[in-house]
Formats: sequence, C-alpha cells, structure tokens
Amino acid sequence: MSNDNIQFMALSKNRIKYIHSLELKKNRKAEKVFLAEGPKLVNDLLEHFPCRFLVATTDWLSQHLHLPVKDVSEVSDEELSRASLLKTPQQVLAVFEQPEYETDISVINQSLCLALDDIQDPGNLGTIIRLADWFGIEHIFCSPNTVDVYNPKTVQATMGGIARVKLHYTSLPVLIRSLENIPVYGTFLNGENMYTQQLSSNGLIVMGNEGNGVGKEVEQLINRKLYIPNYPVERETSESLNVAIATAVVCAEFRRQAALL
Amino acid sequence: MSNDNIQFMALSKNRIKYIHSLELKKNRKAEKVFLAEGPKLVNDLLEHFPCRFLVATTDWLSQHLHLPVKDVSEVSDEELSRASLLKTPQQVLAVFEQPEYETDISVINQSLCLALDDIQDPGNLGTIIRLADWFGIEHIFCSPNTVDVYNPKTVQATMGGIARVKLHYTSLPVLIRSLENIPVYGTFLNGENMYTQQLSSNGLIVMGNEGNGVGKEVEQLINRKLYIPNYPVERETSESLNVAIATAVVCAEFRRQAALL
Repeated sequence: MSNDNIQFMALSKNRIKYIHSLELKKNRKAEKVFLAEGPKLVNDLLEHFPCRFLVATTDWLSQHLHLPVKDVSEVSDEELSRASLLKTPQQVLAVFEQPEYETDISVINQSLCLALDDIQDPGNLGTIIRLADWFGIEHIFCSPNTVDVYNPKTVQATMGGIARVKLHYTSLPVLIRSLENIPVYGTFLNGENMYTQQLSSNGLIVMGNEGNGVGKEVEQLINRKLYIPNYPVERETSESLNVAIATAVVCAEFRRQAALL
Repeated sequence: MSNDNIQFMALSKNRIKYIHSLELKKNRKAEKVFLAEGPKLVNDLLEHFPCRFLVATTDWLSQHLHLPVKDVSEVSDEELSRASLLKTPQQVLAVFEQPEYETDISVINQSLCLALDDIQDPGNLGTIIRLADWFGIEHIFCSPNTVDVYNPKTVQATMGGIARVKLHYTSLPVLIRSLENIPVYGTFLNGENMYTQQLSSNGLIVMGNEGNGVGKEVEQLINRKLYIPNYPVERETSESLNVAIATAVVCAEFRRQAALL
C-alpha cells in the first residue's frame, strides 16, 4: 500500500452514525456534504468534488494508490455494510463537499435547460440528471419543493451525471417571468404533437410533479405546449408516462432536430 | 352503502399476513395472485382481472357501489396502513388473479415487441411496461432471470399498463433462434445512429440488464445494432442511459418513423 500521505483511520461508531445521518436533508445542509457509493460513482466524483473522507475495502484501496483524499478508512466487507446505505454495499463510499453554483439565467438564452416543478421521487430526479448529462443539458432549475439533489438515492441514480449537470433551486414563476422572448416548453395532453414542431436549441423545458403535473401558475407561463404522441393514437393506453421517461423522449427529440441543422 | 351482493369481512390478522406474504415471488406463484394498491390502479385492473378480495376505506367504498368483487373488507385508514405495503397507503388495495397468456411468437412477425434480458429492478420493469403501453407495444418477452412482473413494486410502476401489455417469460436465445427473417434490434455503443436507420414496424427490440447490458449469447443473435446518439457527440458524458430511459427513447423513434408512413 503506497498511499503515503493518507491518514488511515479506523471506522468509529460515530462516523457510521454520521454517514447514516446524511440520509436526512437537514444534516446534509448543515454539513454541506453528500454521500456517494460504489466504485464507478466515487471515481467519477473524486475528479470533480473535494472529498471529506472515504471508506473502502482493502481490495479497492490496493487498486487506488493515489487518492486525492486525506482521510481514508480501510474496512472489511462487514464494516462497510454497517456504514453503507445500500442493500448491496459496493467496495467504497465517500462523503463529498456540496458545490456552490452561481445562478446565471442567461444560460437559458444560450442553451437548452430543464425546469422541474416539484419532482418528488429521488430516483426520478437522479434519472433525469443522468439523461440530461447524456443529452448535453447542463443546467436544471428546480422549484424549492423538488426533492433534494443530494438525497443519497438521487446521487446514486445520477451515475455520475451530478458531476457535470448543475442544479439551481429557485422559484419557477419568478424565474420564467424574468425571461424575455425565450421559448418555455411543457408537455400536456392538449399540446401540439412535438414531431410537428420546430424545436429550439435554447430555452426551458418544464416537467411537472409525478401526480399533479406542472402547477397552475407555471402552466400559464409556458408558451409552447407539446404533446408526446402515443401509438397508435386511437388505442386505449395509460394516461401518461413516468416523468423521467417523458423528459427523455422530449430531450431526445430536441437533440435529434438540433443534430439535423 | 348499496353493495348488496358483497360479503363484508373484517380484516383478520391472517389476511394482513397473507397480503404481506405476496411480497415474495414464491407465495405469489403458489397462490397465482398479485397485489395492487391505490384508486387509479385498482379501478383499471378491476376491468381486466378477476379480483380475489379487496380492502378499502369507507370513503372509497361509498364512491364505488357496484364492485365486481364478492369479498370486500371495509377498514379504517389505520387498518389499511397495517395491510398496505406502501409508505403512504391510498384508500384501497386488492388481490387479483394472475392471467395466463399463451405465447404465440407470430406476434413478433406482425408487430413491434420488446425482449428484456435479465432486467433486475422492479421499478424499471414497471416503467418499461407503462411506456410499452403508451407506445402500443403489446408483448414483452423476458428472460427467466428478469424480475417478476407481479412484484408489487413492478405492478405499482406500471400504472395500469399491466392490464394491456402481456409478458412472456422464456429463453431469449431459443426464442430468437426460432425467428426467421425478422429484425432483432439492440442498443450498443458501437451500433448505428438510430436516426439514420429505417426502423421496422415489426420485430424485436432487446434491452439488457442494468449493470451488464445484453448477455453475450443474445448479443450474437441481434442483427440490427442501434446507437442512441448523445449530444453533442464530442462532449464527455455518462457512459449510458438508464435501461427504461433507453427503451423509451428507442420506442419513441420507432413510432415516430411509423407515424410518418
């Protein structure tokens, strides 16, 4: 083991308690940190965020000799599973510092961005961040009641997308009212078939809450209502798509059209 | 209350135990039943599957006077939450009989079908069933190790799609080898940009396991490899999309092209 500058620490009961405390938003907020688990995710995030401390098995550590982390605990599989929040712990977990992003709304003029109105499910949010990363969407504006991006389930579901996509929590009506001559899209059952519309390469795509969709106040500010056509149109079907699925299908179409230009 | 022909039963401890036992596949299989919860889902399924018994609050029952169910328990919110598997119980739960479908592979010649190779996450499977329903895909062929469609988390995530989409558990290599001159699609990082391909209105789209993708044996049987382009192509991104997201984006493109014909 040649992690020379690393201070190896035993994993104390207090530290396990600390890790578990990060399931709660108020604790993550007070400490300005978040938890990530698993080799792929931790490796990705180590390149982007300062790491407070890292807990890993001997096996994992022997393959990662030059870690940018001072505080490392080497643990057995059994100790790791006491610390982990996952059903199946995966070799390594780490606590990172939350980044602080400045919100500059001119990005909405210059690029395609997402807005999420009260998304509640942590997995949905993480999946949306992952697909935003795939489709080159770098900024997501979230209503204050949207689930916390640092919820451990969200972080896991981003699969590393959280390193490249920036989230901004802010009032969506205030945000949208401050935009001038910028397309604001949303998906509605009474919207226009999105395949018949010329979609822009900038602006905001608003996606709504899992049960209730986009709120009334935000809906009135949406100036381009889209519809994702079901198939065949006359067939009986479920009334809607999961919000992450709808986001993906819409983003894919924006990017298909953009690539044709 | 005018549910005249209904036999109202108190909710016994044994029945609560029975409901909870349905979390396990072996019990669902032995009893040939599955559990569904919440007003929208239960209403949808009552139209399609025989219901063994139903448990609901007085409030819900007062709005559903003509139930096609003989065995109904009227319960308080507190009793319902003891029976429910959900964190937030929703007025009603019901136990339905599992349908038995005959597997006729000629549907793959006549329509677009999905094949799932060892999908493990119950939520992913449910989400895929929901989107298949949206895109008019009526048959999904699943490898034997794919998660059980009657897992309660899967049933909930289908949002009623389980009433219209039929799942068949079978060996995918055997299935695909039995097809003749039928396009078999899959998504791969080295596939062809799907937007440049003419996609058929019949055949099989194979989607793989969350961690490992499509198995080697199945991969060799795929004759049309597709790629979902990321955007912009040169940008660093996550290595993949969630499997339900990828399924949705691919199905949407098949259906966009079909609607143009």
